[in-house]
Amino acid sequence: MIRVGITHGDINGVGYEVILKTLADPRFVELCTPVVYGSAKVAAYHRKAIDMEPVNFNIVTGARQVVDGQNNLINCVDEEIKVEIGRPSEQSALAAYTALECAVSDLAEGLIDVLVTAPISKHIMQSQEFNFPAGHTEYLEQRLAGEGEKSLMILVNDSLRVALVTGHMPIAQVPQALTKELILERLSTFEKSLKHDFAVRKPRIAVLSLNPHAGENGVLGDEEQQTIIPAIEEAKKNGMLCFGPYAADGFFGTEHYKRFDGVLAMYHDQGLAPFKTLAMDCGVNFTAGLLFIRTSPDHGTAYDIAGKGIASEESFRQAIYMAMDIYRNRIADDEAHASPLRRQYVDKSGDKEVLDLTGEE
Amino acid sequence: MIRVGITHGDINGVGYEVILKTLADPRFVELCTPVVYGSAKVAAYHRKAIDMEPVNFNIVTGARQVVDGQNNLINCVDEEIKVEIGRPSEQSALAAYTALECAVSDLAEGLIDVLVTAPISKHIMQSQEFNFPAGHTEYLEQRLAGEGEKSLMILVNDSLRVALVTGHMPIAQVPQALTKELILERLSTFEKSLKHDFAVRKPRIAVLSLNPHAGENGVLGDEEQQTIIPAIEEAKKNGMLCFGPYAADGFFGTEHYKRFDGVLAMYHDQGLAPFKTLAMDCGVNFTAGLLFIRTSPDHGTAYDIAGKGIASEESFRQAIYMAMDIYRNRIADDEAHASPLRRQYVDKSGDKEVLDLTGEE
Repeated sequence: MIRVGITHGDINGVGYEVILKTLADPRFVELCTPVVYGSAKVAAYHRKAIDMEPVNFNIVTGARQVVDGQNNLINCVDEEIKVEIGRPSEQSALAAYTALECAVSDLAEGLIDVLVTAPISKHIMQSQEFNFPAGHTEYLEQRLAGEGEKSLMILVNDSLRVALVTGHMPIAQVPQALTKELILERLSTFEKSLKHDFAVRKPRIAVLSLNPHAGENGVLGDEEQQTIIPAIEEAKKNGMLCFGPYAADGFFGTEHYKRFDGVLAMYHDQGLAPFKTLAMDCGVNFTAGLLFIRTSPDHGTAYDIAGKGIASEESFRQAIYMAMDIYRNRIADDEAHASPLRRQYVDKSGDKEVLDLTGEE
Repeated sequence: MIRVGITHGDINGVGYEVILKTLADPRFVELCTPVVYGSAKVAAYHRKAIDMEPVNFNIVTGARQVVDGQNNLINCVDEEIKVEIGRPSEQSALAAYTALECAVSDLAEGLIDVLVTAPISKHIMQSQEFNFPAGHTEYLEQRLAGEGEKSLMILVNDSLRVALVTGHMPIAQVPQALTKELILERLSTFEKSLKHDFAVRKPRIAVLSLNPHAGENGVLGDEEQQTIIPAIEEAKKNGMLCFGPYAADGFFGTEHYKRFDGVLAMYHDQGLAPFKTLAMDCGVNFTAGLLFIRTSPDHGTAYDIAGKGIASEESFRQAIYMAMDIYRNRIADDEAHASPLRRQYVDKSGDKEVLDLTGEE
């Protein structure tokens, strides 16, 4: 059974609602072992607010007490915390941070297999301990990135995978931030992830332009000629199947994206606005380039509809499925790429054959 | 009958294909009187290239010879022009420019009622005579704008109207170009157009943010606080029903746009990528703020599929319908707002009543 760590996110948003609605299905524990990092009291408060049937939890204080076949909840935040549904508070930010810290430690220790995070408010989470304007992604990059690898935000649904060169950054900073090196780095991380995490053997990647109409040959901006096209050319030389740059509006309008395994957008809204237009309900945010697997739903805290019982849990459910799929894909890919040569118990290279059982497999 | 002027656009693109496919339906001349500005020879060349049945045209040399009940074609470009389907050339740019000039003059003179333009290549059209990087919109603004009014690009389909604060401009220039005054000006033009051209009595307008997540209270950029929110506040004070700023991805993802009569996007791809994702086949580009009515399909020259017979004429057909709708809406709106007081033939203000038939109605 795959152990799915779930952080409760901002306790005043729709986090608990989507978690509870997802786990309410009794068949869910047959697919995986959910481990919620949060508070049983806050969960109960939200359950009552949205007038739901109780969801059974095995309430514990640490990941070592988790049992398979049940919903588990690790009480890891202050019992007396105040819930104020619908608006961010310092307490809710602290609770979100504590649960995340706890889950990430367990993930690094191998007590849980994958991490699914409910949404937080980036604005209120800004503090001395958690100074990451980009939110989860940047924090996890620092905590969990592998060998000098940079993380990459990929929005995923069944037919579309959109990655971002620049993420949570003001538009005014985007043009300077785009460099050939950065685009190449993103392309490389993206390609690795498509192979390793999504089991695409030879991924075809489309690269979008920065400027309208792909710059119209320089009439509407020169970043295409100066940066993006050289990056694509170099990636092609390195054997990557990447194409573009495409103007974002026509690319999505003509459903050109269906011909590619991945789409690399230059900035947040360019990638996310068309993605969510196509796939709001079932979109998942996956952080590629980490040693560990982390997904999240593609919506935010949604304070405006928190506590009303009208939030859709579909994206959150898909985030859990996606995390499990990627976990299995990684294992299958590792197996497929493992050395096919078994250890020789009998050394046949010398003159005489000697049985040796002391070496490692 | 409404006289619909149609410019042939770039003669090496899909312009003639969508024009011919639209006018091939014999019922079309019962709806309006089409007047194509182009070349009978080039039209025939394209017709043969895509292997279509002939379309009958009343071929003339000026708008005064146009007849109702038939497709009209005004021969206004060089007969010996060379067509090179699939790539831009200086000749095709000149032909596009000549037809546009001719149609705009006739529009200003009242010989045609509305103008529908087939796509041009902005890049190749750059010349001394036509120095408008933004293409048609900017050119028409200079030729046809009314009393100091600025033009505004609106993308329209049956359920969605998206206008742009900045249009054909490199992304790097967008943040500086956004000012409170500009946003207010756009809001005002947009509201007027929604009332006058689209017959919405009290339009509700949504304003998008510039930065991701609407800036997250300043964490991801301050243009929202400095510029966009003050503009919205002032517009509200002036009695406008405008709301926001909304983050573009969530706004389109949650179908929030359905609650508004219009959406004001800050830059080209922010508005157009989601719009085309939703409405590629039936989207129309309308230039508001002009004295005259001009629409165009929301696709470009599409050199890659020119001459193959696979271009969809749906958006072009909708552009003609939209131009006619707006023409009728304007007349109805003018009538509704005309003075209800009829001229008094008998002056009742004095001591004696005198019949007077000399004054103007």
